[in-house]
Amino acid sequence: MMRTRPLKVALLGCGVVGSEVARIMTTHADDLAARIGAPVELAGVAVRRPDKVREGIDPALVTTDATALVKRGDLDIVVEVIGGIEPARTLITTAFEHGASVVSANKALLAQDGAALHAAAEQNGRDLYYEAAVAGAIPLIRPLRESLAGDKVNRVLGIVNGTTNFILDKMDTTGAGYQEALDEATALGYAEADPTADVEGFDAAAKAAILAGIAFHTRVRLDDVHREGMTEVTAADFASAKEMGCTIKLLAICERAEDGASVTARVHPAMIPLSHPLASVRGAYNAVFVESDASGQLMFYGPGAGGAPTASAVLGDLVAVGRNRLGGTTGPGESAYAALPVSSMGEVVTRYHISLDVADKPGVLAQVATVFAEHGVSIDTVRQQGKDGEASLVVVTHRASDAALGGTVEALRKLDTVRGVASIMRVEGE
Amino acid sequence: MMRTRPLKVALLGCGVVGSEVARIMTTHADDLAARIGAPVELAGVAVRRPDKVREGIDPALVTTDATALVKRGDLDIVVEVIGGIEPARTLITTAFEHGASVVSANKALLAQDGAALHAAAEQNGRDLYYEAAVAGAIPLIRPLRESLAGDKVNRVLGIVNGTTNFILDKMDTTGAGYQEALDEATALGYAEADPTADVEGFDAAAKAAILAGIAFHTRVRLDDVHREGMTEVTAADFASAKEMGCTIKLLAICERAEDGASVTARVHPAMIPLSHPLASVRGAYNAVFVESDASGQLMFYGPGAGGAPTASAVLGDLVAVGRNRLGGTTGPGESAYAALPVSSMGEVVTRYHISLDVADKPGVLAQVATVFAEHGVSIDTVRQQGKDGEASLVVVTHRASDAALGGTVEALRKLDTVRGVASIMRVEGE
Repeated sequence: MMRTRPLKVALLGCGVVGSEVARIMTTHADDLAARIGAPVELAGVAVRRPDKVREGIDPALVTTDATALVKRGDLDIVVEVIGGIEPARTLITTAFEHGASVVSANKALLAQDGAALHAAAEQNGRDLYYEAAVAGAIPLIRPLRESLAGDKVNRVLGIVNGTTNFILDKMDTTGAGYQEALDEATALGYAEADPTADVEGFDAAAKAAILAGIAFHTRVRLDDVHREGMTEVTAADFASAKEMGCTIKLLAICERAEDGASVTARVHPAMIPLSHPLASVRGAYNAVFVESDASGQLMFYGPGAGGAPTASAVLGDLVAVGRNRLGGTTGPGESAYAALPVSSMGEVVTRYHISLDVADKPGVLAQVATVFAEHGVSIDTVRQQGKDGEASLVVVTHRASDAALGGTVEALRKLDTVRGVASIMRVEGE
Repeated sequence: MMRTRPLKVALLGCGVVGSEVARIMTTHADDLAARIGAPVELAGVAVRRPDKVREGIDPALVTTDATALVKRGDLDIVVEVIGGIEPARTLITTAFEHGASVVSANKALLAQDGAALHAAAEQNGRDLYYEAAVAGAIPLIRPLRESLAGDKVNRVLGIVNGTTNFILDKMDTTGAGYQEALDEATALGYAEADPTADVEGFDAAAKAAILAGIAFHTRVRLDDVHREGMTEVTAADFASAKEMGCTIKLLAICERAEDGASVTARVHPAMIPLSHPLASVRGAYNAVFVESDASGQLMFYGPGAGGAPTASAVLGDLVAVGRNRLGGTTGPGESAYAALPVSSMGEVVTRYHISLDVADKPGVLAQVATVFAEHGVSIDTVRQQGKDGEASLVVVTHRASDAALGGTVEALRKLDTVRGVASIMRVEGE
């Protein structure tokens, strides 16, 4: 039952992802039509540089006036792959007001304004889909939102940034320092000229906010996500991790508190046991571990970025939204009914690996152990190494709150016998 | 916006999976209601043994007359977790005719009669969902059917049977033989008293048929799937695999031919490189690798069986189907528009590891190599080991068709100098 009227699709942005979307819409037109139930027609492409040659795209479709494009009123679906907050936000809202559904790959915008965008979609009876916003081609939004809709998700633990995973993997396997590994990532095109968004964890934090929101049926904004970058991870940290049977990954962690009454979301480098499936995620790949009451542990693995993989996610959404249009319905919208409070980092409970430079004299260990005890942080193992009047203490704790650990470290710094706190790293995935 | 009229759900079967579904419907009633938009009510439970005490299930709901239950006419959703062909098939068809949508976990039935069941669903304007039929809690059907709807899947390669993976993992890690490992699996409850369906690959073949059908938009029936069990895998095979840097897994492989014009589906034990993500899938876990044009390589990993994980998949479908009911719509049905021919095993192209017992005298290698060449099978490596007038030849081939390899082996058996073909194993995942 093929409709003859095609679905009209406008593309906002025609960079790495947008050009792949346009290409696949052409090369796989018959398949898309069969799967949706109607052909899709590229009705317009909004770009910044209209003079650039875009292979396979009719120049007559290209415009610099994105606002006029989304206001046309005859569009069925707007695909937003511009990125950033503005003008993307206004364009998406305008598209809803003029009757289009929206497929977006914009993690920053969804992490910051997801609730308002969902509300705009619902008000206008339209769909907002964004599988491509988190972990590229890896199906995550749909499994969390639909496959696990009958389950209770307790934790999402993932490597959701390919650039930083490439850098950390390089440091792990070659012994390189951060700068050297970053330089290689830049040379190979895995890192951008300004790598801040990746290495400082902003990109991962946006994805954590989106994942936490869906997993816990609770609004989680970018500001709710505790964020630490990975620029201070050293070769020495990797050596420490190896001694622990661990490696180091930049993790996005969304957790329900043990009492179920609140949630947290955070991004930071952490040690993870080599036996954990996430430890063997290499290069620029992404992987996300989901722990639920009934389904236990699930993992989703694949390329987390790149034009074609991201385009695949966009087109999967395009088919779903297209089918919804034809059926006169919409898919699941925002689900925030649980409205759990989002706790601060201080309430996160995990384990810690702490390296201290201390004076090599009797009683130091006793002093240090007393400080941990006073703050209610229980020590799992401690290792003492001395040479030339200097010594190091490596303490691994049992589970404790980040606030208690912070208080412990503050007190340790005040001890005369503690020369310095060389590193503090959380230990996850056990 | 909560509707007051609840959705009425009938449960066919109340064993390991069914009792978990009933339990979660009770314990998570508020969450399910919020996610669907209406409360769900357990309206009846069809069982074989009505006298068995079922905790948390009102005895008044229990009946042995499944047919009368699905004919009630007021049911919104029927959950079928009986398994097997009949009476499940008739009950599902009857449920559609009486206005209910169906959620099923029945891989055997879907592999054999999926097309007819989908047709019955469509005729009655109802949904047929079956995420739980393949790989338990792992979201696979929905990602393949929806997330990858804008992509072209070329291969699905998976470990979809937990029992056999437990046995093979045990053989790999402990050096145990097949029988010893099977005995342990039975003792631990991973294998049934009659393990035939698992170890002979019937269970995996049903899943392969379902996955191939969805991945290639083509009807693939159980009879189309080439099936070899894993009962003849020996400790010696594992030793050979280790020498190759491989392990052995029972794989379900659904492939599009290189020219794209046909597909194949098969289940057999195969060597797979240790560097492949599937090689490190331990114990009774399942994992499925999906290779597509745009998204590249994706992997889905998790518990492939068990009451709670399977119930999680059933309830995810229940939420989706419930939402569709409320919206007066249905989800994506069967997609078989591509209707590609399903080729036989002879046309499958892969690599092979062959161990031959040969006479230890000059010219044997030349004879053997000539046979391979005559059948157009190119040799990658050959290793010769001799002792006491006997010798073994281990040949690893380049890619060749299964028909060509079969012809080669037949000819090798006729050589005077070949005492026997000790083993033939395919090499996958490279």
